[in-house]
Amino acid sequence: MNDRDIDAGLLSPVRAGTPVEAATGDGAWLQAMLDAEAALARAQARLGTLPASAAATISSAARAERLDVRALALAARETANPVVGLVQAFTAVVAEDDPSAAEYVHRGSTSQDILDTGAMLVAARALRLVLADLHRTADALAGLAREHRDTAMAGRTLTLHAVPTTFGLKVAGWRALVLASAERLERVLAHGLPVSLGGAAGTLAGYLEYAKVDGGVTDDGLGDYLDRLTAAYAEETGLARPVLPWHALRTPLADLAAALSHTAASLGKLAVDVQVLARTEVAEVCEPALAGRGASSAMPHKRNPVLATLIRSAALQVPVLAAGLTQCLTTEDERSGGAWHAEWLLLRECLRLAGGAAHTAVELAEGLTVRPERMRANLDLTGGQLVTERITAVLAPRIGKATARRCLTLASVLADREGRPLAEILTELPELKDAFTDGELAGLLDPDHYTGAAGLLVDRALGRPPASRTAPPRKA
Amino acid sequence: MNDRDIDAGLLSPVRAGTPVEAATGDGAWLQAMLDAEAALARAQARLGTLPASAAATISSAARAERLDVRALALAARETANPVVGLVQAFTAVVAEDDPSAAEYVHRGSTSQDILDTGAMLVAARALRLVLADLHRTADALAGLAREHRDTAMAGRTLTLHAVPTTFGLKVAGWRALVLASAERLERVLAHGLPVSLGGAAGTLAGYLEYAKVDGGVTDDGLGDYLDRLTAAYAEETGLARPVLPWHALRTPLADLAAALSHTAASLGKLAVDVQVLARTEVAEVCEPALAGRGASSAMPHKRNPVLATLIRSAALQVPVLAAGLTQCLTTEDERSGGAWHAEWLLLRECLRLAGGAAHTAVELAEGLTVRPERMRANLDLTGGQLVTERITAVLAPRIGKATARRCLTLASVLADREGRPLAEILTELPELKDAFTDGELAGLLDPDHYTGAAGLLVDRALGRPPASRTAPPRKA
Amino acid sequence: MNDRDIDAGLLSPVRAGTPVEAATGDGAWLQAMLDAEAALARAQARLGTLPASAAATISSAARAERLDVRALALAARETANPVVGLVQAFTAVVAEDDPSAAEYVHRGSTSQDILDTGAMLVAARALRLVLADLHRTADALAGLAREHRDTAMAGRTLTLHAVPTTFGLKVAGWRALVLASAERLERVLAHGLPVSLGGAAGTLAGYLEYAKVDGGVTDDGLGDYLDRLTAAYAEETGLARPVLPWHALRTPLADLAAALSHTAASLGKLAVDVQVLARTEVAEVCEPALAGRGASSAMPHKRNPVLATLIRSAALQVPVLAAGLTQCLTTEDERSGGAWHAEWLLLRECLRLAGGAAHTAVELAEGLTVRPERMRANLDLTGGQLVTERITAVLAPRIGKATARRCLTLASVLADREGRPLAEILTELPELKDAFTDGELAGLLDPDHYTGAAGLLVDRALGRPPASRTAPPRKA
Amino acid sequence: MNDRDIDAGLLSPVRAGTPVEAATGDGAWLQAMLDAEAALARAQARLGTLPASAAATISSAARAERLDVRALALAARETANPVVGLVQAFTAVVAEDDPSAAEYVHRGSTSQDILDTGAMLVAARALRLVLADLHRTADALAGLAREHRDTAMAGRTLTLHAVPTTFGLKVAGWRALVLASAERLERVLAHGLPVSLGGAAGTLAGYLEYAKVDGGVTDDGLGDYLDRLTAAYAEETGLARPVLPWHALRTPLADLAAALSHTAASLGKLAVDVQVLARTEVAEVCEPALAGRGASSAMPHKRNPVLATLIRSAALQVPVLAAGLTQCLTTEDERSGGAWHAEWLLLRECLRLAGGAAHTAVELAEGLTVRPERMRANLDLTGGQLVTERITAVLAPRIGKATARRCLTLASVLADREGRPLAEILTELPELKDAFTDGELAGLLDPDHYTGAAGLLVDRALGRPPASRTAPPRKA
Repeated sequence: MNDRDIDAGLLSPVRAGTPVEAATGDGAWLQAMLDAEAALARAQARLGTLPASAAATISSAARAERLDVRALALAARETANPVVGLVQAFTAVVAEDDPSAAEYVHRGSTSQDILDTGAMLVAARALRLVLADLHRTADALAGLAREHRDTAMAGRTLTLHAVPTTFGLKVAGWRALVLASAERLERVLAHGLPVSLGGAAGTLAGYLEYAKVDGGVTDDGLGDYLDRLTAAYAEETGLARPVLPWHALRTPLADLAAALSHTAASLGKLAVDVQVLARTEVAEVCEPALAGRGASSAMPHKRNPVLATLIRSAALQVPVLAAGLTQCLTTEDERSGGAWHAEWLLLRECLRLAGGAAHTAVELAEGLTVRPERMRANLDLTGGQLVTERITAVLAPRIGKATARRCLTLASVLADREGRPLAEILTELPELKDAFTDGELAGLLDPDHYTGAAGLLVDRALGRPPASRTAPPRKA
Repeated sequence: MNDRDIDAGLLSPVRAGTPVEAATGDGAWLQAMLDAEAALARAQARLGTLPASAAATISSAARAERLDVRALALAARETANPVVGLVQAFTAVVAEDDPSAAEYVHRGSTSQDILDTGAMLVAARALRLVLADLHRTADALAGLAREHRDTAMAGRTLTLHAVPTTFGLKVAGWRALVLASAERLERVLAHGLPVSLGGAAGTLAGYLEYAKVDGGVTDDGLGDYLDRLTAAYAEETGLARPVLPWHALRTPLADLAAALSHTAASLGKLAVDVQVLARTEVAEVCEPALAGRGASSAMPHKRNPVLATLIRSAALQVPVLAAGLTQCLTTEDERSGGAWHAEWLLLRECLRLAGGAAHTAVELAEGLTVRPERMRANLDLTGGQLVTERITAVLAPRIGKATARRCLTLASVLADREGRPLAEILTELPELKDAFTDGELAGLLDPDHYTGAAGLLVDRALGRPPASRTAPPRKA
Repeated sequence: MNDRDIDAGLLSPVRAGTPVEAATGDGAWLQAMLDAEAALARAQARLGTLPASAAATISSAARAERLDVRALALAARETANPVVGLVQAFTAVVAEDDPSAAEYVHRGSTSQDILDTGAMLVAARALRLVLADLHRTADALAGLAREHRDTAMAGRTLTLHAVPTTFGLKVAGWRALVLASAERLERVLAHGLPVSLGGAAGTLAGYLEYAKVDGGVTDDGLGDYLDRLTAAYAEETGLARPVLPWHALRTPLADLAAALSHTAASLGKLAVDVQVLARTEVAEVCEPALAGRGASSAMPHKRNPVLATLIRSAALQVPVLAAGLTQCLTTEDERSGGAWHAEWLLLRECLRLAGGAAHTAVELAEGLTVRPERMRANLDLTGGQLVTERITAVLAPRIGKATARRCLTLASVLADREGRPLAEILTELPELKDAFTDGELAGLLDPDHYTGAAGLLVDRALGRPPASRTAPPRKA
Repeated sequence: MNDRDIDAGLLSPVRAGTPVEAATGDGAWLQAMLDAEAALARAQARLGTLPASAAATISSAARAERLDVRALALAARETANPVVGLVQAFTAVVAEDDPSAAEYVHRGSTSQDILDTGAMLVAARALRLVLADLHRTADALAGLAREHRDTAMAGRTLTLHAVPTTFGLKVAGWRALVLASAERLERVLAHGLPVSLGGAAGTLAGYLEYAKVDGGVTDDGLGDYLDRLTAAYAEETGLARPVLPWHALRTPLADLAAALSHTAASLGKLAVDVQVLARTEVAEVCEPALAGRGASSAMPHKRNPVLATLIRSAALQVPVLAAGLTQCLTTEDERSGGAWHAEWLLLRECLRLAGGAAHTAVELAEGLTVRPERMRANLDLTGGQLVTERITAVLAPRIGKATARRCLTLASVLADREGRPLAEILTELPELKDAFTDGELAGLLDPDHYTGAAGLLVDRALGRPPASRTAPPRKA
């Protein structure tokens, strides 16, 4: 194998060198398939239909290093899946250790049981890594949200300043998304990753036939053997026990696709928000500064927000990959000629792109620099227009909502056109003569006083008891 | 409005005229948004910040017939969403009934709260219809699976006969997918469809300001008001109560996308299986026969499997639409300029395509004609090759697995080449001389005797107590 | 038909009320299918295998108003496509006018020939509208590019200021994309929209049989008849003449998908750029101001960039819809049971979303307000960092590229940290002592003097002869 | 680098070991980026702004073996793209050979120019391989179409027998799709793969500044230098010369996406057709037989259609990947923080999946076994129902089209219900008494006589002069 043929991460920096990459690489996949073969042998041995010594030999021989992953990849073209070649090569490896054990490799099994069980093992291992990163990210975000519970900033809708919000509330929202992703992945990890045990067409006929031949299981005992074999295989792998063989019922893949798509796209929300706030003109947050990080090959002054960029690159890819994976639910017969085969690469990319994004998000969340003074400066940019909604509300019972709204619209237009503060214009409008008490308008126009329930929502999102805060957020 | 401008279902027969179409049409969407306005007013009235009489007037006026849906659609181009125009038009309608109530329409609210709450109401109503259809489908499939628990047929993998299975097991698999879809939709319906209550940028500032102005709520009482308003709004709509405003946290949409995608693609599995089995050469099942159903404009003899065709047309569309919807999770700021607006059409199509497919599946499952005699005939097509796996297993302890496999491979090639039954060839191979006891081979070659755990799996999938069946499945 | 069942544009403001909506609605689609029936009859009449009077009656009867589009939509569920019902209903309409002509409706034809030819007619009509809008947009952009050929602004990469560019060059890029879309659509319109003429399974057997029966065409004359019928049908419809019937060769749909996807996504580029530049903090462009345009239901001061928002909503949807359409290329047999049926809705949405975006882009391009003074102010924000690349280049031959780069990196960090202009820092660095001639640095730091080939590129993109401009762009 | 981290093709047998895999692997991509650096240096040297000796040293040093691809992949996480690290490492390599040349590496350039030019080189190299395979496939299909011009088989629509067609016409259709893909790829290869030459933000400012500094180019000479540099770079790489820098105008990527999507999905059509025809019950074609090819790990008798399976696995993946790529057209600013970075992996997968499918299609097309006798047997399966359309046409002038149609529908139902040949039923219907001349019906019912223009269409598709064939296709 040489460099020309492989993917070593050059085109996918979001996951290059991350733990999830190593957990989903070809070597990891091969190991997982060998783990599936070994677990199957041990399960059969526990039920007495396979010699314990053979199971032991098979288990100890099941190491990816003993096989040539590239040779297996090439051989897979002959049979459309890598397991046929793997069984052949692995049987030879076992035979080296103990020829009598070789007879028991892949006993009663089929390619799909091994590949699918292997895929579930890979997914389970990758999901644990992703979850750890999501929880670290959520923890860091909780800290940020707490710290900036009352840091006012411009709320922005359709790219324009809307009403004030707080940075704490924004971050609490990011955290809620991260936790929602984690919840979905945890559900899949806990219940959604089953062993595959169906045999050639989902009837387990091969397993049962060998159980009769090898272990003297009788026709009457088949139901019991079926249940116990499935349970033993599930225990040996740590995976879930399915009700039916799922060779042609691809819910586990669709569930993975949905949860990973949620993960990548949610982290993407965090990333695009960071990108907006990092813009030169906005400058409310910075990515963690590290020597060399964010450098450009052309411009010495650049410190690009590369973490957000990497995360967003994953967010753009995973949903479409996941759509392809979900479409594989629509699969004909007891095994599709193509829909099964299309799943593998798509699943791997979903796992490692979402996982890479989660790994990158840890660093972003833990190191984000926040600039409250820039948030404050930006709040003041529009001379009070962020609170037109509030002033309308206050005026509604005094002059009617419609009139109030009309006044504020007009005042905003004039303020923009003449480049003057809103307060000045408002005091000049005839309809608003005597509408405000002395000094009232200045207070109403302070954006810090119009953050609504932002702080309370942060408390609720963080599960904090209602704040005992008595002072206003700022200047109090 | 004339025919040229509208979509009346001509291009989407899978949902034309189905209940889910009516539940998701523009009129239904408009009604749901009015329901959201009315529920908001009632919620505010329950908390004393809005006159009860105004809430009553607003509620009784909130009927889609009083507005012009096309005019609202056209007006939406000015503001990028239909709510700004709706509030204006609805305020006028309320003013007709009671001018003083008009002041309280949309009090403290924002377009997105109304559109999103409306969308959740539409989704909830549609999901109930879809779920009813899925459960009817699952019931019909349970009956079929029970009836054909032991009806042997060819298992097919990569388009070729593999080993025998039963039609009951195949149908039990379809049912498992349908129930998995239902479970996912039920989870979304029970927990995943929250009211939207965030105000202009997710802080509820407008609601709180009016609560102060209109209802004398004090600063100290805001936390309480926040919690009670959310609860009241949730109760009035029957939707869930979110922890945080989700204006920019689009998990509900992504969850809908995932569950609807699973639904359509799973029903698509049923459809493509029916299509394979309905092929002229296979002819193992027929769609329900109805006069005119399945007619061709050219060929009088045609009775096309139109139900499967319609379902599959939805299965091909929903996953890509759902990908677009999921991508909208990656949305900038407190409200995106575009990502929010891209959700609406995609959501509606996902709902009504998946719902149309579910409605169509009921008829398919309830009326499917099964032809066991054709299944039997097809089982015999390959002269015994369906059980080569079994014979290999039986021979393994006698002559070694590798030799057994080699013999069966050779015998299969010869059987094909010479057009002779496998049994004949097997008895001629020198390695197999004396390998079988008298009469053993005939029994081994009977496909009915090699359906593995098919019947037992059907029992388990249907939740039936283990069968007390003592006789072999057939000919016993 | 009532409002509940229909789509009148409420959820898709990007196309509500636009010409392309009317050109692609159900009424338009029905008319196009009737046009296909009429054109077929006239083509057959020209070849003498159908009475001229029948063709005339069929042509004059072929008006959508005479049929009930909703009834056809509902009937389509029985046959999985709307043409079977249409032929029945249309035959009755023709029979009202002249019973003898009714016999000749749909003579030798099949549903797919009518639906596909109708779809191509719809596409052709829609594409002409889209192209007109793209060319108007390109013209407006050409004017903007010319006007702002030398208006310097910050080039932005990865959200940060990079090096200066000009607004003219940015707009020239938008125009290049719009013209690239137009070129792709024109290619499809000119060559890619063929009549469908294949009959029940693509052999034209029905047409030829009727030609023998009705018109005395002999076996020897079949080749000639085939060629002439195809040519006549193409002429009568104005569509292209295919080499082979394309009932199962869906290149025309894939080509439409690709070109419309390019169109929507390219206009999306323009939209997201406008959104960045319209941000409150950036404020370099504004959308055309119109009373009521861009209003918010909550905030009186808002004038949202709704045109860019609408365009972006289409850009987010079309590529995934187009993917679904392209997948329908993978279609089994002489007509797929599902893949054909999945195309219709996807095609319509691609046409009207891309078309709606193009229509919206005209208004955006023609009315965009540009604020050079804001561009200038933003250029000055970083105190010279936009030209670090330039200073590195100038220093390279003096102190080596690596040293120069190191100095500029350090100076940028210090400038940021200490909030001082870059010029000040640079003059203090020991390595740069004597590196610049007197006054040189000030000139080098002027962003207007570092727009590279921006103006020249605008000239080339607009096809202008090389500028004879001798003075520098500004302050000269 | 160890096996765990890499993709060596294990999960993607459709491309494992194919030439296109080697042409798109990380090593190939790295080499292409080095080729871009070298070509840039040579172009600058040709214009006199870079020493010829430096260009020579840079060119000879530009070998991927001298760099560590995994180290570059890991370093890319710091800067979000692999070029910053590449420039650093490559500069060191050049410095080893000649320190003075190192100064000129990446002179005036930017990461995106190198990565994009490299991507275009990779695409060009891959496309040439794909095109060669498509043309070999088309040639093999032309041979098959010619040979089976008149081999009648059942045309199938919505999975059922429709009317007869010929295998030649079906194959001619596959070939038309393959040629359509080739035409689209050739267009992209000839015109759609430009060099990237824009510098840090698309103004070429860096290149021009160095041209002034290094080569004495004057302000007046900039336009000339711009044009000549672009031309020289295009010549040195063999790529196209763009009008505008396309750093943010991603038409080349969208065009690749569209053409590769067409290719994979078109080959998918061939694959699903082969799969239908290879079904055990249909058995009209077989994949090329090779020892071991198509083996199952469970069932000795299996010879799976693995080539079609591999191709279809690619057809299922490429369109969704291509959608992701096309969405990257919607990219903000002068370089997106994420949309650019999302393109790389998607492009590589599109190239190698489509290319792998094309390579696989050669073998399938060249080795396909056709079984005319099975086609004949299947034609006879329905006892004449394939020609009900024809009989209706013949009867139309005798008894009216509507009556004829009604008779044939009834007769088909009765034939199915009673399991009798259609001919028998037809002769019994009272309406058809005396409708046929003696012996006429038998001739009408022969499916070989109702293949319409199939043979003529094959001639036209293959560009053959009109056949001079005078005898009927079979039995003549």
